[in-house]
Amino acid sequence: MWAPLAGWVEVELEPDGRRVALRGAERGYHSAEIEGVAPGTRYRFVLGGDGSLPDPASRFQPEGPHGPSEVVDPRSFEWHDEGWSGLPLAELVIYEIHVGTFSSEGTFDGIVPHLDDLRELGVTAVELMPVAQFPGERNWGYDGVDLFAVQDSYGGPDGLKRLVDACHARGLALALDVVFNHLGPEGNYLGRFGPYVTERYRTPWGPAINFDGAGSDEVRRFFIENALRWFEEYHVDALRLDAIDGIVDLSAHPFLQELGEETRRLEARLGRSLLLIAESDLGDPQVIERIECGGLGLDGQWSDDFHHAVHALLTGERNGYYGDFGSREDLAKAYRHGYVYEGEYSQFRACRHGAPAANIPAVRFVVFGQNHDQVGSRPLGERLSNLVDFESLKLAAGCVLLSPFVPLLFMGEEYGELAPFRYFVSHTDPGLVEAVRQGRTAVLTGFGWRGEPPDPQAEETFRRCRLDHALKKKQPHRYLLELYRELLRLRREVPALRSLAKEELEVAVEGEVLRLIRRHGDDEATALFNFGREPATARASGRMLLDSAEERWGGLGALPAGEPGQVRLRQRGFILLRSSNRG
Amino acid sequence: MWAPLAGWVEVELEPDGRRVALRGAERGYHSAEIEGVAPGTRYRFVLGGDGSLPDPASRFQPEGPHGPSEVVDPRSFEWHDEGWSGLPLAELVIYEIHVGTFSSEGTFDGIVPHLDDLRELGVTAVELMPVAQFPGERNWGYDGVDLFAVQDSYGGPDGLKRLVDACHARGLALALDVVFNHLGPEGNYLGRFGPYVTERYRTPWGPAINFDGAGSDEVRRFFIENALRWFEEYHVDALRLDAIDGIVDLSAHPFLQELGEETRRLEARLGRSLLLIAESDLGDPQVIERIECGGLGLDGQWSDDFHHAVHALLTGERNGYYGDFGSREDLAKAYRHGYVYEGEYSQFRACRHGAPAANIPAVRFVVFGQNHDQVGSRPLGERLSNLVDFESLKLAAGCVLLSPFVPLLFMGEEYGELAPFRYFVSHTDPGLVEAVRQGRTAVLTGFGWRGEPPDPQAEETFRRCRLDHALKKKQPHRYLLELYRELLRLRREVPALRSLAKEELEVAVEGEVLRLIRRHGDDEATALFNFGREPATARASGRMLLDSAEERWGGLGALPAGEPGQVRLRQRGFILLRSSNRG
Repeated sequence: MWAPLAGWVEVELEPDGRRVALRGAERGYHSAEIEGVAPGTRYRFVLGGDGSLPDPASRFQPEGPHGPSEVVDPRSFEWHDEGWSGLPLAELVIYEIHVGTFSSEGTFDGIVPHLDDLRELGVTAVELMPVAQFPGERNWGYDGVDLFAVQDSYGGPDGLKRLVDACHARGLALALDVVFNHLGPEGNYLGRFGPYVTERYRTPWGPAINFDGAGSDEVRRFFIENALRWFEEYHVDALRLDAIDGIVDLSAHPFLQELGEETRRLEARLGRSLLLIAESDLGDPQVIERIECGGLGLDGQWSDDFHHAVHALLTGERNGYYGDFGSREDLAKAYRHGYVYEGEYSQFRACRHGAPAANIPAVRFVVFGQNHDQVGSRPLGERLSNLVDFESLKLAAGCVLLSPFVPLLFMGEEYGELAPFRYFVSHTDPGLVEAVRQGRTAVLTGFGWRGEPPDPQAEETFRRCRLDHALKKKQPHRYLLELYRELLRLRREVPALRSLAKEELEVAVEGEVLRLIRRHGDDEATALFNFGREPATARASGRMLLDSAEERWGGLGALPAGEPGQVRLRQRGFILLRSSNRG
Repeated sequence: MWAPLAGWVEVELEPDGRRVALRGAERGYHSAEIEGVAPGTRYRFVLGGDGSLPDPASRFQPEGPHGPSEVVDPRSFEWHDEGWSGLPLAELVIYEIHVGTFSSEGTFDGIVPHLDDLRELGVTAVELMPVAQFPGERNWGYDGVDLFAVQDSYGGPDGLKRLVDACHARGLALALDVVFNHLGPEGNYLGRFGPYVTERYRTPWGPAINFDGAGSDEVRRFFIENALRWFEEYHVDALRLDAIDGIVDLSAHPFLQELGEETRRLEARLGRSLLLIAESDLGDPQVIERIECGGLGLDGQWSDDFHHAVHALLTGERNGYYGDFGSREDLAKAYRHGYVYEGEYSQFRACRHGAPAANIPAVRFVVFGQNHDQVGSRPLGERLSNLVDFESLKLAAGCVLLSPFVPLLFMGEEYGELAPFRYFVSHTDPGLVEAVRQGRTAVLTGFGWRGEPPDPQAEETFRRCRLDHALKKKQPHRYLLELYRELLRLRREVPALRSLAKEELEVAVEGEVLRLIRRHGDDEATALFNFGREPATARASGRMLLDSAEERWGGLGALPAGEPGQVRLRQRGFILLRSSNRG
């Protein structure tokens, strides 16, 4: 245990209160070997003169972040995934889940019965929003404070392992969202142990983690071991690194690079694919550039630019960051490069943003039409299905799933779920609850919102976000679900769609229509996206594979073919053509 | 004029107080063309409701930072340096000068009469500590607040131009220290004009400059135009960028890279060499790595590691950062790589520091045995000549001048100046004066100092730092001066010493002796540095060029040659051998 700020450390064991002194060693480490401690034993650390605290690296907090830690035997779980070797980046179709609201149970076990449906839909990876222990039972997960402990109300460590095992049994990978840029505001005792945070930099969520100052070797070790723990002990396949723009690190060997190197080392040792995918607001291709080229070498990053380009086109919204988007050319650029802002002036940011990403392989970008943030940061947590018409939902699906990037779906979007996804917490500190309410109001005011937002602390706010899986059987939800399934099938089976490459891409804007041509060898797929409200004609050739206006997807019916070399789109939506023998 | 925070802007002209309104334009720019304003006219800007302030980009503040700005005609100076094309990095021998204390006049003009001596010594570039306008007449220069104005008490814009012109007339380059990481505490009105600073990051000197947030395009422009102004309008040849570790910038197109690109562009336009050399505490070779390799592409950086390695060996000091140094192997590593810390744990920093720099060309490192900071940050501002014996001074000279790096001398070190270089200011705000006194005491306490430090505000503190050029004519000062001259001559004339390359370097530690072999083609020079106090024997071959123990350098006399292939060093000091026909 690393506690450089403590003069001495003891461990206090329940139920009898036995205390064992730890031996101090170099650089603030303390250790002891204690006989006869069975799994399930609860314990706390007693820091010299500074109270009795849970283990910073606790595996389980059965009574939440303020309670004792519990000893877990990491080898006791019986795994059934021998031979599982993970999935390469290019095969990922990610499905983002918030454990608490995905199922009526709100647990890991509550997800398992849905896995067959997800696999059959064409999803290849389940991504969980953060599961590190947070206070109470309701939280998006970004307020986690015990980074090595699995949320008790979700089912704890064994619950997570059962879910991962069940995923692997079905050929699904499991990705986990981890937060390395800040710690939650309640139950965070790390500062009592060591210099985990620094005042030299600030993040929107408070002081930054100390990745480059005095004591940072050990702080980095804490976070790196956390990452490796998920991979090794929980058999997780990929980590989504939350908002790495909040990781300020001027060191010559950046934390994220070190994390990548350690992950590669573990990957070699375990013999299965391990992935690191960043959420980054930096617009910096160096994040996903190879280390040999001066980059951080992460495997991929979310492209918010792609989302904003699609969202602004579909909704017409121009407030906040959407003001930087809205033209078809923006989306065309996102298809070509992955980013829209590559050094251009951003009105929203009031400065230039980004750097050229044309040389970054397409497979390094994760794209989405919705995600927890883009939905949940809105005043009322509206999904796209609450904002736009049915044809637009289909168009959004086409934009994402026919892209040369790695697609991510937000739980429920595939059938047009109508429940919102709102900001909710269950803090126990009344002062904090009030601060969160006020902070939330301030954020939403900045977003242009003028009303009273839903109360983040209210259980009702949380409950209203639960998915209604029964919708899948009703129309038009079922139409949408079938369209997603068909698009994912085509993505797998059509070589031009399967191959993720920007090099053989051709994008053009013709009036209201954006034409995206993808190629692989002789195979060519052309997608025509009509963002207008009127019928449109576009130049294209090939055999019709799919028209979102067809009745089988709940549309008004496809228009008959136009003149040779021309295709007619009936309404907002898209058409997919294929030609496997191009001139 | 950029003043996004002002509703309206007027310019007020002296002596009659005429006011002219500026037209507001996009993104906070305001402008006006005013007829009949002669050079010498004084003016202030009146910001809507927020007082009357000097021009943020003032060329001259004849009454200091609080007074009016003065119109300067940038084309009125008569230059005589046509045909001057600057110097390449590899030819620099830098001589660092503090304008206020170098000469009895304490002005730019006071330096000119010394230039012939400097050239004759072998110096090729004069480097001035910062000259941007600061309050009062006494300051190191790092409290500058009018970055485009040349310190009035030094002689203002024309004084600087006369000095640069005089340098160029003698084939000397002029380098200027510029501070882009913070602004001085007194007379800094920039915050009233725009978002020049950010609270998101902190530097040891206060809030950081806003290089990556809202409004940062214009803030960057301000600093970049400042850099270009020195090059173009003042004919400066190189900029020394103060403490770039205080420039926190997460943008995808870092300010320093942009600065480098703009400098390259101006270099092409002007047709003369322009250099950017950073002071960096990052230990990060990316600072001087090429942009194509993911680096920032700066031309060079100071190697504090080299200094600390030499200083710790010569003085035996181990307090503060010197605790991380002290072995001959440290210095050997500095010779091999430029850095000593390349990812190793630093006790002083309490974390790992640096990254491998072996691939960075030697010419990118500026090394020194002393500089203003290493002398001036000490409690009493002691130079090496106040700390070690005469033989050690000669050894320091040998270590620096026989290195494969760009050498920098701190004014007066070449003759063993005895005046200290202490921290001094002449603020006018009594609260600030007291804060500086206390801050200085705190810094020195951290340095291990327990007494009452010299009063930074006292004129006496400043006056005691004036050089005593008369010492040059006295012994042993003259011995030292001659040794510097001879070393610089050899550096120019011996191919193995002239060629700055790490690739053909051989460094080894043999007991108290460090052996440094440098080669170029058939030419080979071997330097033997004896850090011990006793006579020492070392393996080496070649013709003796110089022994610091010789009587001509004030030594006890060289020892007669030892056995073949062995060289004997009489005392602390060094020997230089040459063989131009190696087996």
